Parts: sequence; C-alpha cells; structure tokens
Amino acid sequence: MNTPKGFLFSAVEAAIKKPGRKDLALIFSEGEAVVSGMFTKNNIKAAPVRLDMKLIKSGKGQAIIVNSGNANACTGKQGMKDAVEMAELAATALGLKPNNAYVCSTGVIGTLMPMERIRPKVSELANNLGKASIDDVAAAIMTTDTFPKTISKRIKIDGKTITISGVCKGAGMICPDMATMLCFIMTDANIEKSALNKALKIAVQKSFNRITIDGDMSTNDTVLVMANGMVGNKPIKANSKDFEVFAKAVSDITYELSRMIVKDGEGATKLVEIEIRNAKSDKDAEKGAFAIANSMLVKTAIYGNDANWGRIMAALGYSGIAIKEEKTEIFFNGLKIVTKGMGIGKDKEANEKLKSKEIKIVVDLHLGKGTAKVLTCDLTEDYVKINAEYRT
Amino acid sequence: MNTPKGFLFSAVEAAIKKPGRKDLALIFSEGEAVVSGMFTKNNIKAAPVRLDMKLIKSGKGQAIIVNSGNANACTGKQGMKDAVEMAELAATALGLKPNNAYVCSTGVIGTLMPMERIRPKVSELANNLGKASIDDVAAAIMTTDTFPKTISKRIKIDGKTITISGVCKGAGMICPDMATMLCFIMTDANIEKSALNKALKIAVQKSFNRITIDGDMSTNDTVLVMANGMVGNKPIKANSKDFEVFAKAVSDITYELSRMIVKDGEGATKLVEIEIRNAKSDKDAEKGAFAIANSMLVKTAIYGNDANWGRIMAALGYSGIAIKEEKTEIFFNGLKIVTKGMGIGKDKEANEKLKSKEIKIVVDLHLGKGTAKVLTCDLTEDYVKINAEYRT
Repeated sequence: MNTPKGFLFSAVEAAIKKPGRKDLALIFSEGEAVVSGMFTKNNIKAAPVRLDMKLIKSGKGQAIIVNSGNANACTGKQGMKDAVEMAELAATALGLKPNNAYVCSTGVIGTLMPMERIRPKVSELANNLGKASIDDVAAAIMTTDTFPKTISKRIKIDGKTITISGVCKGAGMICPDMATMLCFIMTDANIEKSALNKALKIAVQKSFNRITIDGDMSTNDTVLVMANGMVGNKPIKANSKDFEVFAKAVSDITYELSRMIVKDGEGATKLVEIEIRNAKSDKDAEKGAFAIANSMLVKTAIYGNDANWGRIMAALGYSGIAIKEEKTEIFFNGLKIVTKGMGIGKDKEANEKLKSKEIKIVVDLHLGKGTAKVLTCDLTEDYVKINAEYRT
Repeated sequence: MNTPKGFLFSAVEAAIKKPGRKDLALIFSEGEAVVSGMFTKNNIKAAPVRLDMKLIKSGKGQAIIVNSGNANACTGKQGMKDAVEMAELAATALGLKPNNAYVCSTGVIGTLMPMERIRPKVSELANNLGKASIDDVAAAIMTTDTFPKTISKRIKIDGKTITISGVCKGAGMICPDMATMLCFIMTDANIEKSALNKALKIAVQKSFNRITIDGDMSTNDTVLVMANGMVGNKPIKANSKDFEVFAKAVSDITYELSRMIVKDGEGATKLVEIEIRNAKSDKDAEKGAFAIANSMLVKTAIYGNDANWGRIMAALGYSGIAIKEEKTEIFFNGLKIVTKGMGIGKDKEANEKLKSKEIKIVVDLHLGKGTAKVLTCDLTEDYVKINAEYRT
C-alpha cells in the first residue's frame, strides 16, 4: 500500500493484555506535522484522550504511540501519569520536543496500564521505525477486530501527487459521536491548520458519526490526522478548489474505514445501510435512521433473514420524529415492501433479499426533504458470546 | 387466586397465528365499571390502541376482548375496521352498549387480523364466561412469555374487603413509556374516576415506566384498569386516606407485574435492578439508569458473570447526565467494586456475585439527591435466537 512521504511505522509486542501478538505501535513523521483531532463526547474520557485534547491545542505533532489491550480509562490520577509517561518515553526515544507525541489506547476499561511491560519496549519501538508497514500498525491496534483496517488514496494538487492513508480499529462499543474508537490519517500534503480541521470535521460527520454497532459510545474515541507537507505543494487553504479535492479524498477515506468498522462489527454477518428519505428535516432523518440501526429487534430480524418491517415502523414511531404512518414506504435492497404504512405481501421476496451480505433499507417518509444514511450491522449470538467473555 | 367480585373470564382458541393454544380472551364485569387507561407514546400506534383511546373518553366500560398472535399494528384502515368490529362483536354477544367493550391485541406487527377465524369465536367466548380463570386469560395473551403473569391483593377500605387483581404480558419489545405491552387491572372497589386515573398514573410511573428489556418501545402498550364498585364501599376520592391505601395496593401490583415481565424477558437468565443514588436530579438518575439498563455491553457482561464496571462508567458517560468520574462509586449486590471512579481490585468477588439470579447494581454519583431504579435483564444468545426466528 502506498503511504505518504516521510511517515514511518513500527510495532512491537509488549504483552499488555496477554503475550503472543504485537500490541504497541508507533506512527512517526520525519518532519513536524500539522495535526487535527476529534475526540469522544462521552463525559467519561480515557486519560490519553484528555492528554491529546491538551496537546492538540498546539496544532502540531510528530508521533503517535498507540496500544491495544488496555484503554487506560477509569484509571484515575495514575492513569493520567501513565499516559503522560508514554508520551514522554516516545518523545525521548525519538528525540522530539516533549508535547509532540500523542498517545492513544484501546482495550479493557478500568485496569491500570502495565507500565513495567511498556517502559522497556519504547526504545525498541523507536529503533524499529521503518521495519513495519501501516498494516502492521492496523494489526497491533486490533481488539476484537477480525481484520486490519487501512486504506490509501492519491490525488493531484498543485501538480504534485499527494497521498493520504488511514488506519483504524473498531469492532465493539461503537456508536461514535465526533469520532470512532481509534483512527489515524496521515498525509504528505501541505495544508493550513484551519483547512485540515475543516476537512476532518466534514469527513467525520458523514462517516464515523453515522455508524453504530451496539449503540455504546466509547470512552476512547479518537481521530487524529497528521499532514507533514513533505510533497511541497503550496499550502491548501479552506474554501479553495484544492481544498475541495483534498476534503473529498479525506471523506472517502473515513467513509471507507467506517464501512470496514461496521462490516467487522462484533459477531456481525451483514453490513446494513439505513437511509431515511424525505423526512421533515435532516435531523429527523438522522434520528430515525439511528433508532432503526440501534433497535435490537431490527438487528436480530435482519440476522434471521426476516423482513420484519413492523419493527422498523415501531422504531420510527418511538424515535420521536415526525411520521405519518399512512405515507411511509419501506424498501429492502430496492424491493418495495411497505406502501402507505402497510405491507404489500412481498415479505417472502424480501426475506430472500436479506440473505445477501449487504443490506440497504430505505425508508421514504414523504414529509419533507431531510435525508440521512447510517451504517450498522446485524445482532447475532456471537456478539453476545464475544461480549459475555471479553475479559476472560 | 382471589379475584374481585363481579369479574368473569373466558378464553378460547381462534388460531390467530397458528392453532394449538387459546389466544382470544375476554374480561367482563357484571356491572358497568369506571375505567382508566394509559397507552404507548410510540407515534405508530396499533389500531386497537387508537380505538381504546377514543372509547376511554367516556371513563366507563364493561369488557375487554384481547388476542395474542397479531398486534393489529401497521394495518391501515382495514386494521381500524377490524378493531371496531371486534369491539362490536363482543358488545353484541354480551348485550352491552356499544362503546363499553375495549379491544387489545399483541403479536406480529403488519399483518391483517384473521377476522374470518375471530368472528365465529366471539359468541363461544361470551358463552364460556366464568369457565376460565384469570390465569387462563394470562396464558391466552402470552406471546414469547414463558409463564403467565397474574397477581391479586386484598385491602380493607370503609370496612369492606376490596380485591385488586392484575394480569399482564411482556417478553420483548419492552421499553414502555406510560404503560407496558398489555396489562389489565380489575377491582371491585368503588372509586371516583379522577382518583382511579391518579392511582394508575402513580403506579405506572414507578413500575412499567421503569423497566426495559431491549429498549424497543412497542406500538401496542396498554394498561387498562376497571373498577366496578361491587363491594359497595363509599366512593374513594383522590387525596383521601382511603386513596393512599388503594393507590399503594395498585402500585404494589404494577411493580410486581413489571418485575415478572423483566424476569421473563426474552432469553433472560437474570433480573437486574439498576439504582442510581445521589444524582444531580431525579431526571438525571432515571436517564443514567436507563443508559446502563439498555447498554448491550453491560447486559452481555452480566450474562457472562463479568463485573465489567468500565462499561457502566462508559454508559453513564454517554448518557449525558452530570457525572464526576472521581466521585463515582459502584456496588454489585452490596459489594463495593468502584470508589472514586476506579476499581478496587474486587472484580473476582464481584464476578461471583453476578452468578446469582437477581443482581442489584447501585451507582452512587455523590452529586445531589436524585434517585431512580430501573429493572432490566441480561442479554443472551437466546434473545437473539428468539427474535431472529420470531415470525418463522
């Protein structure tokens, strides 16, 4: 996979939760980069999230040290000390200014970081820079994910070829608001801080903020984007034509990554897109789509290949949005099954449609012009199993 | 079981969803009764709910005809015609004024009522009055319920012994707001309409409105209470001492029935009470308790005997209520496991506590005087199985 100029990767085994896999990774830019970030809106924020929210005020950075196996959330003052120490260890090993290294963690909540196992590994991590690929980083940050999630895109701006790469992890406790579990985007584009912020915000709004696996918002959601300017284009400004090209590419990347997260939802067998059309407002459309996407009854019906559209109507009904039963239409993968709020006898055909791996449910409310799409997955016995046994 | 004077019951098989069980029932009062009701706040309401909401304006009634197997929801104009016909058939068979018979339905959404199978059964239903017990009615209204739910209480008022009996069904699509799936309360007390309304509202607020199985609010939630006055006490007025006694008994009944509903939640193996203490407000306490109770991650952890309190912290965090991590305490069945927002190394002992069939989780926020209790159950593979296969 093509990665942007000047970015190096590393991953080592620190046996944070248990031995047997690489679980500590490093993303490093050879030059100082402009950094934007978005963080969980959960009132309970993990220590590294609170640390990064401080660091990012500088708008600059050069490294991200990240671990799986432990979220460093609900760990009190010691947790913050540990996050700060991880940042300092990384900065020292890399010869960076303190404050130029960000920290991210994912995994079990409520357990102190095993610093005695992390401390001795940071110099090895720094020394190994360049020996690992972006896919190795993706693998190291996996928790219950079943596949690593990376993507790259190339665009032309100012006569230069710019590369943007993204890596993320997901799987459970996924109902982000402002960001998802962990996502890192790197680019060699030269871009102003305000433009980078804007591109990230647009991208996250229609991707990570529009997915849900289980309706549980994490304590650790973080998206960081680093732009090191190493291709030497003239700086991209917000509201320019170049900005549109750049922002579109970032949005494509976050959308593809968010699809991967949902596809790899814990226990999921199907990727489901819920689209609400012609709601009274965009806000209504989003609220209605999330109510359907988070309904356990809708999710289990999809798993069971049962086009039980009554559960969709019930979810729309309790979502609190404006709805007229007698105007509502529902489509499963292009097949109309509900018109004027009533079934039209196509449930058997719809059950067949549900056997595909990708399901698109469209609800047309015929009330206004509001629209929204939300990605989710089905709910299976395996989700229950994975989460009943997560800490054992 | 003792039932109130003047109430008769009946149940027959109409093979509404499939043959092999009684699925059509009748509750009849020999004298006209004062009737109060509370109904789902879901914007999509089943036809019988909309019909009963009209009928109850009279404040009077004498019969309830109720079926399982079909919810008569999302059935358009024909659905309303069918509900009206069911009421008329019952009124005619019983020699009642039209408008004195209420109709309730529960079961699959989106399928027209098989009126050709119901029509010929209504006179049999009326003729059989007195041959069935309240438990037979409870059995006839079950869907995925595994046991019938009934309760009776006796109180003394004005020197008379008053009996209050309740019957309900639950199991899935349970997150009521104003009422639960179906619940009928009968009493031989003589009580003014306004007092009956008030007693019901108080009772429902702390019982059916404080339970959740899957967070899915039904289209059919209905509670009806009938008071026929047949013991001949002088009428109970609101704000009297007699009212307190009566209201307490109704509250006890709805609380016990709501516990039965949660205990019999689809696939549930455990009854879980979530109590929030010392929240900033009662509203915060209720919101926080529901966020925990509806968290799939909390529910699966409880199923897996994993005292994963981090998921409780995360749910509190995203619920949006006021919280100070460093003040929060969590107890599992009386055992403190979190203090000042951090674990105190008692997770193994807490895992043992989780092996009991009844779990009490207390969260003390140490922020104010707000308090709330919500009942829920664990989330198991069987919930998924039941709901993946519900219509097959």
